[in-house]
Amino acid sequence: MVDFRFFRPIGARTLAQILEAIGENSLNLSLAAGKTTISDIEELDVAGPGQLSLAAKKSYGAALSHTNAGAVFVSEELLPLVPEGSIALHVENPHQCFVRAMNYLFPDSGFLLAICPEHETLPAPALEEDISIGTNSVIGSGAQIGQGARIGPNSVIGPNVSIGRNTRIGANVTIECALIGDNVNISSGVRIGTEGFGWLDHGKSNTKIPQLGRVIIQSGVSIGANATIDRGALSDTIIGEGTKIDNLVQIGHNCQLGRNCLIAATTGLSGGTVVGESVLMGGGVGTSGHLNIGAHSVVHGRAAVTKDWPEKSMLAGAPAQDIRDFWRELAVVRRLAKGGKR
Amino acid sequence: MVDFRFFRPIGARTLAQILEAIGENSLNLSLAAGKTTISDIEELDVAGPGQLSLAAKKSYGAALSHTNAGAVFVSEELLPLVPEGSIALHVENPHQCFVRAMNYLFPDSGFLLAICPEHETLPAPALEEDISIGTNSVIGSGAQIGQGARIGPNSVIGPNVSIGRNTRIGANVTIECALIGDNVNISSGVRIGTEGFGWLDHGKSNTKIPQLGRVIIQSGVSIGANATIDRGALSDTIIGEGTKIDNLVQIGHNCQLGRNCLIAATTGLSGGTVVGESVLMGGGVGTSGHLNIGAHSVVHGRAAVTKDWPEKSMLAGAPAQDIRDFWRELAVVRRLAKGGKR
Amino acid sequence: MVDFRFFRPIGARTLAQILEAIGENSLNLSLAAGKTTISDIEELDVAGPGQLSLAAKKSYGAALSHTNAGAVFVSEELLPLVPEGSIALHVENPHQCFVRAMNYLFPDSGFLLAICPEHETLPAPALEEDISIGTNSVIGSGAQIGQGARIGPNSVIGPNVSIGRNTRIGANVTIECALIGDNVNISSGVRIGTEGFGWLDHGKSNTKIPQLGRVIIQSGVSIGANATIDRGALSDTIIGEGTKIDNLVQIGHNCQLGRNCLIAATTGLSGGTVVGESVLMGGGVGTSGHLNIGAHSVVHGRAAVTKDWPEKSMLAGAPAQDIRDFWRELAVVRRLAKGGKR
Repeated sequence: MVDFRFFRPIGARTLAQILEAIGENSLNLSLAAGKTTISDIEELDVAGPGQLSLAAKKSYGAALSHTNAGAVFVSEELLPLVPEGSIALHVENPHQCFVRAMNYLFPDSGFLLAICPEHETLPAPALEEDISIGTNSVIGSGAQIGQGARIGPNSVIGPNVSIGRNTRIGANVTIECALIGDNVNISSGVRIGTEGFGWLDHGKSNTKIPQLGRVIIQSGVSIGANATIDRGALSDTIIGEGTKIDNLVQIGHNCQLGRNCLIAATTGLSGGTVVGESVLMGGGVGTSGHLNIGAHSVVHGRAAVTKDWPEKSMLAGAPAQDIRDFWRELAVVRRLAKGGKR
Repeated sequence: MVDFRFFRPIGARTLAQILEAIGENSLNLSLAAGKTTISDIEELDVAGPGQLSLAAKKSYGAALSHTNAGAVFVSEELLPLVPEGSIALHVENPHQCFVRAMNYLFPDSGFLLAICPEHETLPAPALEEDISIGTNSVIGSGAQIGQGARIGPNSVIGPNVSIGRNTRIGANVTIECALIGDNVNISSGVRIGTEGFGWLDHGKSNTKIPQLGRVIIQSGVSIGANATIDRGALSDTIIGEGTKIDNLVQIGHNCQLGRNCLIAATTGLSGGTVVGESVLMGGGVGTSGHLNIGAHSVVHGRAAVTKDWPEKSMLAGAPAQDIRDFWRELAVVRRLAKGGKR
Repeated sequence: MVDFRFFRPIGARTLAQILEAIGENSLNLSLAAGKTTISDIEELDVAGPGQLSLAAKKSYGAALSHTNAGAVFVSEELLPLVPEGSIALHVENPHQCFVRAMNYLFPDSGFLLAICPEHETLPAPALEEDISIGTNSVIGSGAQIGQGARIGPNSVIGPNVSIGRNTRIGANVTIECALIGDNVNISSGVRIGTEGFGWLDHGKSNTKIPQLGRVIIQSGVSIGANATIDRGALSDTIIGEGTKIDNLVQIGHNCQLGRNCLIAATTGLSGGTVVGESVLMGGGVGTSGHLNIGAHSVVHGRAAVTKDWPEKSMLAGAPAQDIRDFWRELAVVRRLAKGGKR
């Protein structure tokens, strides 16, 4: 479900209207189905009636077969899996159609972003007591800022952003499309809630996938200078309670970090990286997208994580492997290079 | 040719004046040659009369032999290659002399930067209709901003910068010495047109090479949060139409990126990297400077590209190689470490 | 010694008061010892009477045995090494106690930071002549800015920060807890003096270690766009004269860089990295913390330095080794993968 505080919907439309708007009115739909109203978009596993969803490739199969979405753009191969209660929208390129529908239902995805924080239709920011806001900082309409919060100069808080109590935000910071907890520490130059890096048709049209999610920063989190945290593409990017992130770290859209992690500087987590609680990461770590790193794992500096790893993994190398394998391979190569036998 | 909109020249000077100013008046020059006037600097291959150029090392040989430059600082070994129409300035350290001449001819290289955007000698910014400029943003004198453009709060647009139509610029952005196309999307915290990293006499005097070029961002480009794009040293840094760049990416001076590339987060391209169209780069990629990556290549995450690669290369590893070689070597090492034979 | 210009002390307290405040009043201390006054904290090797210090693990042994600190939190194993003039505070967890004492003696570590640059108790900034300060820049109380300095728009200079003559600071910069020399060039988006990444009890409570040091930028230094330099945890982070740092570089707390180094883009130096003079580093280099890289070394791009290296080292690879060994190993692996013998 898109958070209408950050992205303004055009409102309910019938499937017939949507298909016409996106140039797919040749689709053969029953009259009743065409009259079904849609007012939102959502991922398959949590979608319900009135929400439009997407099943573009095989990996969506399991979620598709249990979805309650009102309608689903679906590929040929997944068509048999659409449940009875959902209307199958069988199109040649489901992802392209879904993107067009997103743009139709949320036409002004720049609405309410930090880029233009003041809105006549929204109330003034709601500020609790004992708040300090730096010179030239711009606080968006509808923003809520908790007691004891301090914001440095020249920062920008987007409209409807919520900031918890005793949270400290540095200078020259930008925050949009985000809900921030209590006792959070955000250093200078941080960007939170910026658009994720999502494109279709790579290297050709590079069609933009609208980024309609949020960033949730739980309480006690710390974020280092000039770090960047993109908002989710559809659901949220989440930083768990007590997790500490160092300078110049990139957190891609839809990453989910557990509680009490430590992530050292210049690390980059690709979109959809899921990190369990109490994971320690050295500097310069990278991850491929859409993978899980189990709780209590230690990812050594410069590791490049390319697949799922269970709890308490100790990882090193690029591509990352168990650190004992990493050292063993290193030893073998060094011995060979020195003229010894394996 | 230096763009006088961004860097103010002192105007035409004779070679005799220039050589005196830089402490090289012992150079044996004919009276006629000494009276030749120079008003600009340029690279060998495009320089013409009235422009001063540089031939410092062997790799400049081919360009030198065809140059139309008015005069060239040249090393002993390249002296025979100076064409008849150009005046050879044979000095012991051509690069040092060239830098001194740049500083003499463009004494105020800080003129017209974001650092001081308002100038009495320039007109007010030229703003087309339907433009939105955020609170506390500073727009430099002489800047041109196209219809439908939106600029977030607390951003700084340098003097004479040009921004196309429907281009969207986030909050806390800095742009200087740049020409930006239409429908460009620049996220918050981006720096465009900052000085490149160019030094002579490494580790000793670290003498600065003036950075007198520009950044050209073509239409449809997208640039992620806190990314940095340096201006050219002499000619331009160019980002091709439709290319999308992720957060925290560094693009060095004189890089040229083709159309429709995708460059993922935390990648760093060293100065003079030339990337063909439709190249896809994963996260954390790096390149050594002054090399070519052919069109339609795929550079996997964390690759370190150290030399030229042809079209449609598939690269991985550090130093980067063909991805099939990368996997083959990885397999050999893993097998050895597990006690198997190669 | 904490610089009281940046961190306000509560003033002198007796050891008895301190121990009570941090919940360690069960410690068996003589009456005289309990009355000893402490007004500051300091590292073992430079601490004197009136200063409280820490000896948490074996590596502190040598410094401990010669310390002049008034009192030291010390572990069981180091207890015998406390010199006669110092009062041993033998506690179960010395580091946790020290952190609590830091928080007690410097309760408002956010005092005087860029986050709130204007203070009633401090004088107005002291500006020399011929200074240019950009629109919407915020200059903290007590700051000193030297003749000929230029500061771009929307920057923030924290209170009591000192900036030398002819230093040039870009737009959207943040500087706090720092002393900056003459002829320094700080590009747009740079963050200087932000809190370092220091935590106790990793992955569990992630208890913050107060960051009470400074950043010292010596004359002639250049710092690239969006780079970040954290202040020291207790003593200082130091960038040596004439050193040039590229874009998006991270310098951790208590790093010490010698004179005339060159550090290329996207490099990250972990806390406590000590770099000798005239060291050249390529792009994307990383270091583990608390190590030395000798003067005149060359660290090739993407090297991951994990231990001390002497002067004139030539390093490559991850983990970094002598570049000749790096090439030798690479050659062996390539030969094996191509079916040849070692």
